[in-house]
Amino acid sequence: METIPSDDRGLAYGDGVFETILVQHGKPSLWAWHCARLARGCRRLGFEPPAQAVLDAQYSALPVQGCHVLKLIVTRGSGGRGYCPPDVPSPRLISRLMLFSPQPVRWQKGVTVRLCTLTMASQPRLAGIKHLNRLENVLARQEWQSPDIAEGLLCNARGELVEATAMNVIWYQEGCWLTPRTDECGVQGTLSAALMNAGHLSYGTLALDALPAVRHLCVLNSVQGVWPVRQVVDAQGSPLSAHDIDSPAVRELQRQAHALLGYGDSVSFER
Amino acid sequence: METIPSDDRGLAYGDGVFETILVQHGKPSLWAWHCARLARGCRRLGFEPPAQAVLDAQYSALPVQGCHVLKLIVTRGSGGRGYCPPDVPSPRLISRLMLFSPQPVRWQKGVTVRLCTLTMASQPRLAGIKHLNRLENVLARQEWQSPDIAEGLLCNARGELVEATAMNVIWYQEGCWLTPRTDECGVQGTLSAALMNAGHLSYGTLALDALPAVRHLCVLNSVQGVWPVRQVVDAQGSPLSAHDIDSPAVRELQRQAHALLGYGDSVSFER
Repeated sequence: METIPSDDRGLAYGDGVFETILVQHGKPSLWAWHCARLARGCRRLGFEPPAQAVLDAQYSALPVQGCHVLKLIVTRGSGGRGYCPPDVPSPRLISRLMLFSPQPVRWQKGVTVRLCTLTMASQPRLAGIKHLNRLENVLARQEWQSPDIAEGLLCNARGELVEATAMNVIWYQEGCWLTPRTDECGVQGTLSAALMNAGHLSYGTLALDALPAVRHLCVLNSVQGVWPVRQVVDAQGSPLSAHDIDSPAVRELQRQAHALLGYGDSVSFER
Repeated sequence: METIPSDDRGLAYGDGVFETILVQHGKPSLWAWHCARLARGCRRLGFEPPAQAVLDAQYSALPVQGCHVLKLIVTRGSGGRGYCPPDVPSPRLISRLMLFSPQPVRWQKGVTVRLCTLTMASQPRLAGIKHLNRLENVLARQEWQSPDIAEGLLCNARGELVEATAMNVIWYQEGCWLTPRTDECGVQGTLSAALMNAGHLSYGTLALDALPAVRHLCVLNSVQGVWPVRQVVDAQGSPLSAHDIDSPAVRELQRQAHALLGYGDSVSFER
């Protein structure tokens, strides 16, 4: 296990950003999207990201067999006086490779998710980037233990859906897939961004009380792919809404997303 | 320099808390208050704090000469699956001792502070504790470079004062020293808590537009002590308010605070 000095600002203040990247047979998925978000995050925090060649070197050495997740952390490094960063920071790049198995059963049969009681705070200065201040996600993820609950949905103070604890959320409305903006809270997903870039996804707003009227709902990220949501339950486990997971709209979106991730041909969506 | 494994949750998510403790001649100031806030923070995040004997061992080995700051970090340790913490975490205690010199000139002559443009987000689930998610403080501290600005004041979305980037804020009103509650944002200061416990400080609310009418304003923490604020300037450096720093109310509060910190007899407040 790699170690870092205990005065690193990533540890001290969460002063940095990270990415978790799907790697299949040595090939990282959505690499350009991950690098772009990482760089955008560093700049938003006020320091220069590692050079692209330094990032590229991270995947040139990846194992060519099997399925992994590559986690990259970039911190502002050590130094500075308290919260005040050094004038010229020396960012620290930390990488870790973990074995990973996708869950095709969740792709095919969908999942039950739960509505979290934690309300996400609005902080436009930090919204959208994948920074290391993730206590809201940790607290939300602690709200349930049951393995039957695949994810937890999070709302903002206006009662609108924002994201899931570790995934983005999308819904189908009037022939379009929509996802919340991440300009006040939440993380802009790389898979969501790639789907949006390909014309398969747009921005929208969904108030929680409008959720039961939504026909299709999914949670997704660049590692797990797309999980259709069968049912949303509240903190007591009572049903809040039910959704249709086996429709052409869901399967087509899933096909597009999984093609972007390189999962495309490896899984049958037949039930 | 001590190192930590790169899979520590403190680095990954800011999943932990910290304290910075003034140590003079081997004696930590406000030790019980620091330990109490540390423990409260761990419990709020959902894990058991280190035993008191483990914390006490941190200061039994301190150098008996000179003035230092002891920084303690307690993370939830390694493990878990993503944001989901392990069922039985093994918290990691990291300690670091740094030389420190207080700034008596600031005690005596007061300071100029600046109003930060960053607005603090409201998150009651994290407010009051000294957790490791401190990017708001880092961003706010980056708003100025001039050494003539000693601190930056932060407001909430309602335009009320919350704290300074690394200190608490107090003001004098109708014969009382007041400080904002920290139930939506901000960190509850140990010196503020000790002053409150001794009857020298109460909770209040101060809207920014009422600041010019405040006669005395101070920023304070358990390491620096109490800095009277002479002037508040805006982001362009234009004066927003001026305050009287040389009055019995200010000097008496300073005396009480510095006695709590063990600075009491070492400094003359005569100008």
